[in-house]
Amino acid sequence: MDAVNMAVEEGIVHTAWLFGDLRSLPESCRRYPDSYRQTDLGAASSSLEKEAAREAVASVARGDCQMLMKGRINTAVFVKAMLNKRSGIGTGRRLSLVSIFELPDLDRLIFLTDPGINPELFPGDDAKASVDIVSNAIGVARSMGIACPRVALLEANEVPSRSIPTTLYESKLSHMTWENAVVDGPVSYDLALYEEAAKKKGVKPSPVIGKADILVVPHISGGNFLYKAWTKTMAAEVANVVIGASVPVILTSRSDGDMVKFLSMCACVLYSQHFAAQSRSSIGCR
Amino acid sequence: MDAVNMAVEEGIVHTAWLFGDLRSLPESCRRYPDSYRQTDLGAASSSLEKEAAREAVASVARGDCQMLMKGRINTAVFVKAMLNKRSGIGTGRRLSLVSIFELPDLDRLIFLTDPGINPELFPGDDAKASVDIVSNAIGVARSMGIACPRVALLEANEVPSRSIPTTLYESKLSHMTWENAVVDGPVSYDLALYEEAAKKKGVKPSPVIGKADILVVPHISGGNFLYKAWTKTMAAEVANVVIGASVPVILTSRSDGDMVKFLSMCACVLYSQHFAAQSRSSIGCR
Repeated sequence: MDAVNMAVEEGIVHTAWLFGDLRSLPESCRRYPDSYRQTDLGAASSSLEKEAAREAVASVARGDCQMLMKGRINTAVFVKAMLNKRSGIGTGRRLSLVSIFELPDLDRLIFLTDPGINPELFPGDDAKASVDIVSNAIGVARSMGIACPRVALLEANEVPSRSIPTTLYESKLSHMTWENAVVDGPVSYDLALYEEAAKKKGVKPSPVIGKADILVVPHISGGNFLYKAWTKTMAAEVANVVIGASVPVILTSRSDGDMVKFLSMCACVLYSQHFAAQSRSSIGCR
Repeated sequence: MDAVNMAVEEGIVHTAWLFGDLRSLPESCRRYPDSYRQTDLGAASSSLEKEAAREAVASVARGDCQMLMKGRINTAVFVKAMLNKRSGIGTGRRLSLVSIFELPDLDRLIFLTDPGINPELFPGDDAKASVDIVSNAIGVARSMGIACPRVALLEANEVPSRSIPTTLYESKLSHMTWENAVVDGPVSYDLALYEEAAKKKGVKPSPVIGKADILVVPHISGGNFLYKAWTKTMAAEVANVVIGASVPVILTSRSDGDMVKFLSMCACVLYSQHFAAQSRSSIGCR
């Protein structure tokens, strides 16, 4: 509730709709009575989580709400309601997590995907899912003002090799045609982020080498390690958005602080506004 | 040569044997004439690299040298000479890279494996190779005074799942019997390293949770991302040793600075001395 209050105070969120057992809500959600709409679903029970998720998703499906945020509710129950074939807000696109970071000594935002939802870049050799995962991140970067994001498909090094199947998938992805983005890979972490690393290694310049905005990891594990090395060991701030449903979604984790939740709401608003405006004009790569 | 000079000055290395085209050596290797033994193999040619690698490996095989370090030579040529069936120094054990770090806010060394050699923890579902990879790291940690290293098999989270095959392998590895070590996994990065993360998430205490010395990654990519996030983005120092041959080996990379090379030599010496003394006494887990 403190994070939502912050978003209300900053004018990021106009009205927050709350679904669940409202007697369990902290006093702080009554601080801005005009900014909250509360749907009391009665006392906590085994069916309450399902009902709360269904009602929240319905408010998005009706167009009343423009983003969806998980509260203290089981993630599986929440996602199941989102993706329900009849009443959900799925679009047929693969859902993926895009995490947005400020890192020291880099003058740009870094978008990491997917550190938390999809097990592999190519689950079951399904190219469409991977294209969705990359496209979801491109959409987020574009919504933050990067007209033509530079996408690095990350590996340990630059050489596609049969002994590391994901390097072959990445090579295939980098040869596809991408709208409004430049995609290159496999590329190593240091070459993707740092131009001086490329110079030191004598790697020939490319639009992505040393200038990547988006880092796409081959496995959830490697993405999660980067996410946590940056947030836990380096204390970097992060915003998390889940893309692929009809609106951006915030899947909070137990260990998230208020700032992560607040920044995630900001990112969702930027994303929604960008795609609302997109039908009016579009600027891409030159 | 500056790194080798440092090791000579600090008394880490007694004599450095140089193999190759000695006319291409910098002046600095003549600073301590008594500490260098030079084997001039003539002018640079296509066969020189092979001959230099063969001669260097032979010096180890004869017992003249107790560690092997790659200079400006192709890595594949170097490794091929090491593993030559007739004249090499292979032992039948899997070769693996163990990288040793000091990280901020942690009061212990962290040993990461394998960020640079083996593509996967279970290449071709070969449990023996994985056991070697874990055991190699345990040996390095023990040589640095950690009698009973705590080993975390890292993943994005703690739940073994069929959709992420490496989590099942790690679960299998954690149920094996390990001498002189405690092995647990799958475990996430934050739970492996930070006790307060475990408290916050309500995870029950274990000998590894929040206290891991060794982090074993499922794929080379994730290990490489951590290695580079720590060294490139956080500017952490690192020492690298390759274990599995008859002596510890240093496989320098083009981007390594002198300090990495110096610390790697220190680590090799500690490892060799430990295992020379090991036949005399052994302390393990209680």
